[in-house]
Amino acid sequence: MKRITREELNELDQRYRTHLINSVSGFKNLNLVGTISENQKPNLALFNSIFHLGANPPLLGMVFRPDGPEHDTFNNIIQTGQYTLNNVRENFYKQAHQCSARYRSGESEFLACGLDEEYLNAFRAPFVKQSSIKIGLELREVLPVSLNGTRIMIGEIQLISVGEGLISDDGYVSIEQGGTLTCSGLDSYHRTEKISRLSYAKPDRFPDVIG
Amino acid sequence: MKRITREELNELDQRYRTHLINSVSGFKNLNLVGTISENQKPNLALFNSIFHLGANPPLLGMVFRPDGPEHDTFNNIIQTGQYTLNNVRENFYKQAHQCSARYRSGESEFLACGLDEEYLNAFRAPFVKQSSIKIGLELREVLPVSLNGTRIMIGEIQLISVGEGLISDDGYVSIEQGGTLTCSGLDSYHRTEKISRLSYAKPDRFPDVIG
Repeated sequence: MKRITREELNELDQRYRTHLINSVSGFKNLNLVGTISENQKPNLALFNSIFHLGANPPLLGMVFRPDGPEHDTFNNIIQTGQYTLNNVRENFYKQAHQCSARYRSGESEFLACGLDEEYLNAFRAPFVKQSSIKIGLELREVLPVSLNGTRIMIGEIQLISVGEGLISDDGYVSIEQGGTLTCSGLDSYHRTEKISRLSYAKPDRFPDVIG
Repeated sequence: MKRITREELNELDQRYRTHLINSVSGFKNLNLVGTISENQKPNLALFNSIFHLGANPPLLGMVFRPDGPEHDTFNNIIQTGQYTLNNVRENFYKQAHQCSARYRSGESEFLACGLDEEYLNAFRAPFVKQSSIKIGLELREVLPVSLNGTRIMIGEIQLISVGEGLISDDGYVSIEQGGTLTCSGLDSYHRTEKISRLSYAKPDRFPDVIG
């Protein structure tokens, strides 16, 4: 095993450290975030920092860097109060990755990267037509993180759209069956292969395979 | 596509909604969190809510529910200022899942679930011997989330221990090669299969496969 201490981390080349720290903590979710500006310009950005914050109310968190290319996304959400999450599937993962390029402010990544806008119910923010799992959110709070200048945006789920057969009887959405990819680090894309679901853990017995 | 609105979410059975909301936003990382109490009782808990917050300084966030079984973990971190993350591999994923059971406070999940403590450098908090990727952290801040009573704990990486061959020339850690699993929802475990790494996205060209 190779050990790297805090002091050694400080001495690493910046790009090396960025790859190392971004990959070491585990797999991440991958979502295209759709927004629209007050003057109706759609925007699409790739995020891997979305996390579950609670089921009741249904809240998700998302991290914004102080200097990231996701500046338009942040401003659009502040302006309109809305955003969408859309899963990334293997047949368009390169287009999704390309949404991270620093396009001119106001240029639509939908057009530039070859993905299609879709509008569901009364939601103003665009969804991605090619995705099989889509979530519409409303902004609830922005938490500033003084340690490094990032901001955590918290949104409440207002709409879920998933392929008909993907929801199990107990509410679990088979995101793998929906073709959802995961990522590690900044640029590594992975498909998944289910091992099993396990029964609720109790102290007096070992878990059973339940699916 | 099946659509579920916010109003319909409210009417769902609580367990159904919990499974739905926990699974729909994508794959999650999976880490065993090792801690020790002031009076030297080790604790191990399974988390899927850890997220990257920044590479410089190297910060990770982690969500604590108001009423979760991870109460001991939270208290130990407040007491000692330290905790460890340890990846979950297929050969012990059932033991890892079992760490979520509500054992009596002070009872060691290492012993109860059949995993081994390991102590690295001068770190007081225990690592998991069976893991191939281990991270030692020091607590930096606790952010309360007033919306739902959760708390986001932010830690700074102090030590990384990874299998010698897992780090690429550019710093990327091949967590898949290290046997790291991902999860979806509350109880579904998945191995991964790498598709590719893609080159840094630029507006004027489509990404290349780089590994």
